[in-house]
Amino acid sequence: MTRLCDLAPSNIHAIAPYQPGKPITELAREMGLKPEAIVKLASNENPLGVSPKAYEAMQDALEDIARYPDGNGFALRDCVCRKFGLQPAQVVFGNGSNDVLELAARAFLAPGLEAVYSQHAFAVYALVTQATGAVGISVPARDFGHDLDAMLAAITDKTRIVFIANPNNPTGTLLEKQVLHAFLQGVPKTVLVVLDEAYDEYLSSELKSEALSWLEEFDNLLVSRTLSKAYGLAGLRVGFGVGSAPVIDLMNRVRQPFNVNSVAQAAAVAALEDDEFVERSRALNQAGMAQITQGLDQLGLGYIPSYGNFVSFHVPMAGDVYQQLLKNGVIVRPVAAYEMPDYLRVSIGLYAENARFLEVLELILKARS
Amino acid sequence: MTRLCDLAPSNIHAIAPYQPGKPITELAREMGLKPEAIVKLASNENPLGVSPKAYEAMQDALEDIARYPDGNGFALRDCVCRKFGLQPAQVVFGNGSNDVLELAARAFLAPGLEAVYSQHAFAVYALVTQATGAVGISVPARDFGHDLDAMLAAITDKTRIVFIANPNNPTGTLLEKQVLHAFLQGVPKTVLVVLDEAYDEYLSSELKSEALSWLEEFDNLLVSRTLSKAYGLAGLRVGFGVGSAPVIDLMNRVRQPFNVNSVAQAAAVAALEDDEFVERSRALNQAGMAQITQGLDQLGLGYIPSYGNFVSFHVPMAGDVYQQLLKNGVIVRPVAAYEMPDYLRVSIGLYAENARFLEVLELILKARS
Repeated sequence: MTRLCDLAPSNIHAIAPYQPGKPITELAREMGLKPEAIVKLASNENPLGVSPKAYEAMQDALEDIARYPDGNGFALRDCVCRKFGLQPAQVVFGNGSNDVLELAARAFLAPGLEAVYSQHAFAVYALVTQATGAVGISVPARDFGHDLDAMLAAITDKTRIVFIANPNNPTGTLLEKQVLHAFLQGVPKTVLVVLDEAYDEYLSSELKSEALSWLEEFDNLLVSRTLSKAYGLAGLRVGFGVGSAPVIDLMNRVRQPFNVNSVAQAAAVAALEDDEFVERSRALNQAGMAQITQGLDQLGLGYIPSYGNFVSFHVPMAGDVYQQLLKNGVIVRPVAAYEMPDYLRVSIGLYAENARFLEVLELILKARS
Repeated sequence: MTRLCDLAPSNIHAIAPYQPGKPITELAREMGLKPEAIVKLASNENPLGVSPKAYEAMQDALEDIARYPDGNGFALRDCVCRKFGLQPAQVVFGNGSNDVLELAARAFLAPGLEAVYSQHAFAVYALVTQATGAVGISVPARDFGHDLDAMLAAITDKTRIVFIANPNNPTGTLLEKQVLHAFLQGVPKTVLVVLDEAYDEYLSSELKSEALSWLEEFDNLLVSRTLSKAYGLAGLRVGFGVGSAPVIDLMNRVRQPFNVNSVAQAAAVAALEDDEFVERSRALNQAGMAQITQGLDQLGLGYIPSYGNFVSFHVPMAGDVYQQLLKNGVIVRPVAAYEMPDYLRVSIGLYAENARFLEVLELILKARS
């Protein structure tokens, strides 16, 4: 007898869901550890927490929580447009930038079409593509980064989206601005380039993206940003996409009317206005990156130089090291699903968290040798 | 020259986005009114706000907001399973029950397939169907409610989902339990019945749904619930779907890994455990429903007897009345998009809000005659 689930589209059956970083509460349950004793460096979260101004805004927003959010995000839209010099019709909001990526896929992809992305790039590109029934084309990486020439060559008549992560997660690689700009010039105008800049806030001023200023030149460019990283709002889910009005209009057609909750909207406004907090977060990340990479050097472990708030390092039997770190209350991220089975990704934390990670890692490696 | 957006699938271009109730802040801006002077009875929100216990839980959750939510919703899953006697694999969480409806559509529909729903039923059924490229079949209503015989007859080999809203929004109609059970027996096992029970908490104990106890009999049944109505958490976005493990598994494959934010998860646990608050909300709604329907009787306006926290009433030139109510700071909901151009839907509010609505409505009608 045919069953309901057998009839679901084969591309849905084939999806292997995203593997998130292990939550602190989960490890605490599994290992019988106290949550306070656990160091989580697994999800590229901001170890400083959130801007105090965002915290206040969240408190205020709780007062009216029985009301639906503003589905148009008026106040947040106004804030984003002022901060980045944009028109209201150029901006779409998402339940995290994950949602922005998915809206792009759902608006432009369908069975019979294709999306192109890089090997070792953020896993969600493949997932949102697959869910639409389109085919995902993974282009082999060059030095763990995007091989833009090969990606251009992979574009066919069926291609509707090219996903670019810059900096890329989990490798931390960065494309030079001129190189990226030349790539955009080479991409057919009938292909949407989704430029995921989730980690842009961690770049130094001279490296920071100028892609928003390219929007006038390329109406097939969509820039995606998140409040989950440097802005410290991962728990609330808010991100946004910026592109040409017709692209944004199509994405809004598949957007859930209340996709961004009201606490997230209020917090995002306050967070975007607190440049000092973001600068403090960037500076802390820079110091922590030096601390961790020096530690890895001392342990004789190679790593991929990273422009994000994380670094992927090479370690034999990475899966085993991951498990041993867990037993000692340190959560990092396995990246075997990214075709990097000999690597682990560690997020940059507070000084003491980074030190704890390095200390436990050293003990594990010593016990081995 | 072919342009990017022209190539987007035609079903996406054809979507007319959902029209939410007008937010208080928006009306205040448009009319130059003070937000405090506005009465919003437009979105079936809980006029009592939220459970004090949920409020406390939200406050606590803000402390750790820079962390990603638990993508598996461990604590909330545990709470739902205990409260409703379910197994963990039977439950999927959504960013509001809107998300649950969309996950079902995305997991089971695709171009070439069909979904069946009733005329005058919740607008999101048509939207989520259309977004997948499947065809939506709207079955003419009977006395503003679902015509289940006609809906059964509308099922074809291509049908994968039947959406049922019980009580239905915006008409407030309720299907009898035996009738609904018989319908489920008649639906082919290869068709998923999505039973949307967003307003179940407003039913009296003898009318309350027993559908969760039918899950053993029907593995093609998905029951959808929301925390946005009687639980007062509309601003946070959380709902859940309950069904057979294979159905839930497919829905989880298209679910965004962090679709439900951490404040919503914490609040939902506390809200689900506060039966007293829900009972108080139900009692207030019952009294307010009597107040409003008596007022409509006195004004000589007909209405559709409703089992929800809202009632749709008949008024000539409804669009005009809606605008005049707005000018007087009262927001209700036009339902012309539901093929009910001569009706307006009013949500049940606090005593004073209901009185204000009736008072302004009376003035508008008098000025006319």
